[in-house]
Amino acid sequence: MEKPDRGLHHLLGIDSLTDRDIESLIERTLELSNGAPASSASVTTANLFFEPSTRTRVSFELAALRLGMRVINIELEKSSATKGESLEDTVATLAAMGVGCLVIRHPQTGRLQQLAENLHAPIRLLNAGDGQGEHPSQALLDAATLAADGLDWSQATIAIVGDIRHSRVAGSNLKLFDRLGAGRLRIAGPEEMLPDPPGIERVEVCHSIEAAVRDADVIMMLRVQRERMDRAGWPDPDQYHRRWGLNPAHLELARPGCRVMHPGPINRGMEIDGAVADSDQSLILDQVRMSVFARMAIFEWLH
Amino acid sequence: MEKPDRGLHHLLGIDSLTDRDIESLIERTLELSNGAPASSASVTTANLFFEPSTRTRVSFELAALRLGMRVINIELEKSSATKGESLEDTVATLAAMGVGCLVIRHPQTGRLQQLAENLHAPIRLLNAGDGQGEHPSQALLDAATLAADGLDWSQATIAIVGDIRHSRVAGSNLKLFDRLGAGRLRIAGPEEMLPDPPGIERVEVCHSIEAAVRDADVIMMLRVQRERMDRAGWPDPDQYHRRWGLNPAHLELARPGCRVMHPGPINRGMEIDGAVADSDQSLILDQVRMSVFARMAIFEWLH
Amino acid sequence: MEKPDRGLHHLLGIDSLTDRDIESLIERTLELSNGAPASSASVTTANLFFEPSTRTRVSFELAALRLGMRVINIELEKSSATKGESLEDTVATLAAMGVGCLVIRHPQTGRLQQLAENLHAPIRLLNAGDGQGEHPSQALLDAATLAADGLDWSQATIAIVGDIRHSRVAGSNLKLFDRLGAGRLRIAGPEEMLPDPPGIERVEVCHSIEAAVRDADVIMMLRVQRERMDRAGWPDPDQYHRRWGLNPAHLELARPGCRVMHPGPINRGMEIDGAVADSDQSLILDQVRMSVFARMAIFEWLH
Repeated sequence: MEKPDRGLHHLLGIDSLTDRDIESLIERTLELSNGAPASSASVTTANLFFEPSTRTRVSFELAALRLGMRVINIELEKSSATKGESLEDTVATLAAMGVGCLVIRHPQTGRLQQLAENLHAPIRLLNAGDGQGEHPSQALLDAATLAADGLDWSQATIAIVGDIRHSRVAGSNLKLFDRLGAGRLRIAGPEEMLPDPPGIERVEVCHSIEAAVRDADVIMMLRVQRERMDRAGWPDPDQYHRRWGLNPAHLELARPGCRVMHPGPINRGMEIDGAVADSDQSLILDQVRMSVFARMAIFEWLH
Repeated sequence: MEKPDRGLHHLLGIDSLTDRDIESLIERTLELSNGAPASSASVTTANLFFEPSTRTRVSFELAALRLGMRVINIELEKSSATKGESLEDTVATLAAMGVGCLVIRHPQTGRLQQLAENLHAPIRLLNAGDGQGEHPSQALLDAATLAADGLDWSQATIAIVGDIRHSRVAGSNLKLFDRLGAGRLRIAGPEEMLPDPPGIERVEVCHSIEAAVRDADVIMMLRVQRERMDRAGWPDPDQYHRRWGLNPAHLELARPGCRVMHPGPINRGMEIDGAVADSDQSLILDQVRMSVFARMAIFEWLH
Repeated sequence: MEKPDRGLHHLLGIDSLTDRDIESLIERTLELSNGAPASSASVTTANLFFEPSTRTRVSFELAALRLGMRVINIELEKSSATKGESLEDTVATLAAMGVGCLVIRHPQTGRLQQLAENLHAPIRLLNAGDGQGEHPSQALLDAATLAADGLDWSQATIAIVGDIRHSRVAGSNLKLFDRLGAGRLRIAGPEEMLPDPPGIERVEVCHSIEAAVRDADVIMMLRVQRERMDRAGWPDPDQYHRRWGLNPAHLELARPGCRVMHPGPINRGMEIDGAVADSDQSLILDQVRMSVFARMAIFEWLH
């Protein structure tokens, strides 16, 4: 992959990617998924997760191992974080030890951006999710999954359904689908889960799942964060499933062959029926499969 | 190792192994322990332990690393399991990410069997202990240890002493020793720790440790689960040690050169005297040493 | 590196090192930091930390990985330690599994020494900190950092400031700096944090930070253990910072170009001002960088 000299050293979000970056990353992901040889770097990457996520951590770890990278997992309850060291000092320390890349998940929106701005060390930051901000590797793997499936972006109607307001997956995907020239972008969810205003101007806000999925080519369901369910004013699980859960009848409203996506892990019977998740129209396991290749492409691109 | 095409893709228990499988696995274990070159696969294995076990997890990890496999450890308190994802979905996800083999320990008897029956993904399951069911890799390494020690199976009297009823180690070992044609099989333990009926018909049930070890060639002591000790009707530790703990006097009752085994970790002064565990007749560290080679042989056989 | 036949098989503390050992280890650390090829052993090392320390554990892990060693991390809350197995049995088990080297941190002073005395297995022990005893790899990396910086040992005045009494870093460094022929060695700290008597006879005890740093070539600040701060009679953080924290004015009292060190993680605004930690005179990140090379040299020397 050709890599022009660029000021960018991190993957923090979608906005900082050039069109060429996006194109290269998706193209390289598809190449890797088709068995193209991967560069085998001796770079060390460290996973630094301030929120638990086996799925994402393992996906990054497998991607790094397949590239021949060394991987360090840092368990946070045991780390210097509990000794009062700042994240900035932790990053400087790992950089001094020769760690070349840090995959960070952090509960605070914008924390990665802030970290990158004050960074003096030659270490790459890879945003694996910051609060309600971005999760760019998820968006890139989702786009690669749709590209592998032959989606015609300019003709596609893509609906994202669920807690849009608090979802970094929705945040990054809407930006990326917009950049890729998706024909129509829709979001839908309970009133208190809708962003105000939506980050992308041309996004259509739908007030029922039926309106969102009608004639859609892609339906992306978001995971319900069960812990939010207890809050006042929020729907209970049964009510949520009845009003916002994706069931087979909804697929009848969509375009024939409409694809169903979900970043996982799925709550069967909550935001999605098990039968839909397991159907031929589901790309959920394709997303998982592509996740490793997309993250390999990202590691290659960072270095 | 020659590997005929077989329907079997997992190691769930002893029953599903053919005689040829058992023979090959033990033979290959001994070869590896004598320094035969190991195949170096690029398969990724993941350790998924729903019950803690450093000893077993590390043994599997070392076996995989020596074969050149990639190893992922999944920490369960941080995993999707806590996010409500089913084990079936976790396994499908790991398979989609390219994990080729899953080493699973689960507290529920039969959970691995159930998982295998519903499995659609090309991933191998390796039972590292399911509830009170099986622990087949332990049985295979124990048999290999005895084979390396030159045991004549048909002439051998083997006694297993302790909480037979709740022990998956006893469960798998009795099946395997039976299949290997052990001369006499005995079990012994407190009344409430005896299976009713014993799984293997020809097993002799003894009601004292003295009866069990008399003229024995092999005595296998089981670990006392201290947490069970608090239950009503169960013996207290001192009482247990006096009645069921293996001490040097017992070895006088056994055949000369009788071997002492224990799956570990041992409770010194509870089910076994330290002096016996450390004696020349103890194979306990031989079992540990063989554990890595047996698990290498199992990984090779699975793929 | 030439390695004469020696009775020593472990790195437990500074006293058991010969002058030639010390010289070789520092020399080899500097070679490695300058890019000399590292030997690539197939030895397996295991990290066994009974006290949490991401920094030290990661540094050892990176050193081992760069040497091509296999690394196992043993999480203690899940380990056999919680099943009542003795540390001696855990070590014998890991040795039987083929682990060649154990990096151990233990809260009990002298526990590693005790372990080594009763050890029968061919496994190397590497003391990564035992209670208030020693932390020899830290002292070796500190000495290598100063050597790389061109320190003239015989002319150097080195001051260590903080909780000397409870610090294994101070303990090992004082011994090593003494062996390396440092010109003057000073310690300073609150009365209740001073050793009585000091382990090294020629150490000068100072009763203010100003006295300690005057004309110093090297100032090593120790981390304040916040948990100790709550004890009766101990200074509160503000008071500690005012009386014992290193600030820019102190550097005016020292020799021009005086070097500032700290084993990390640092408490900014407690034992050291952020401005001092980040200044040109700070070797703190150099220590971190050198830590990986020093531990590579130690692994090579152990095997």
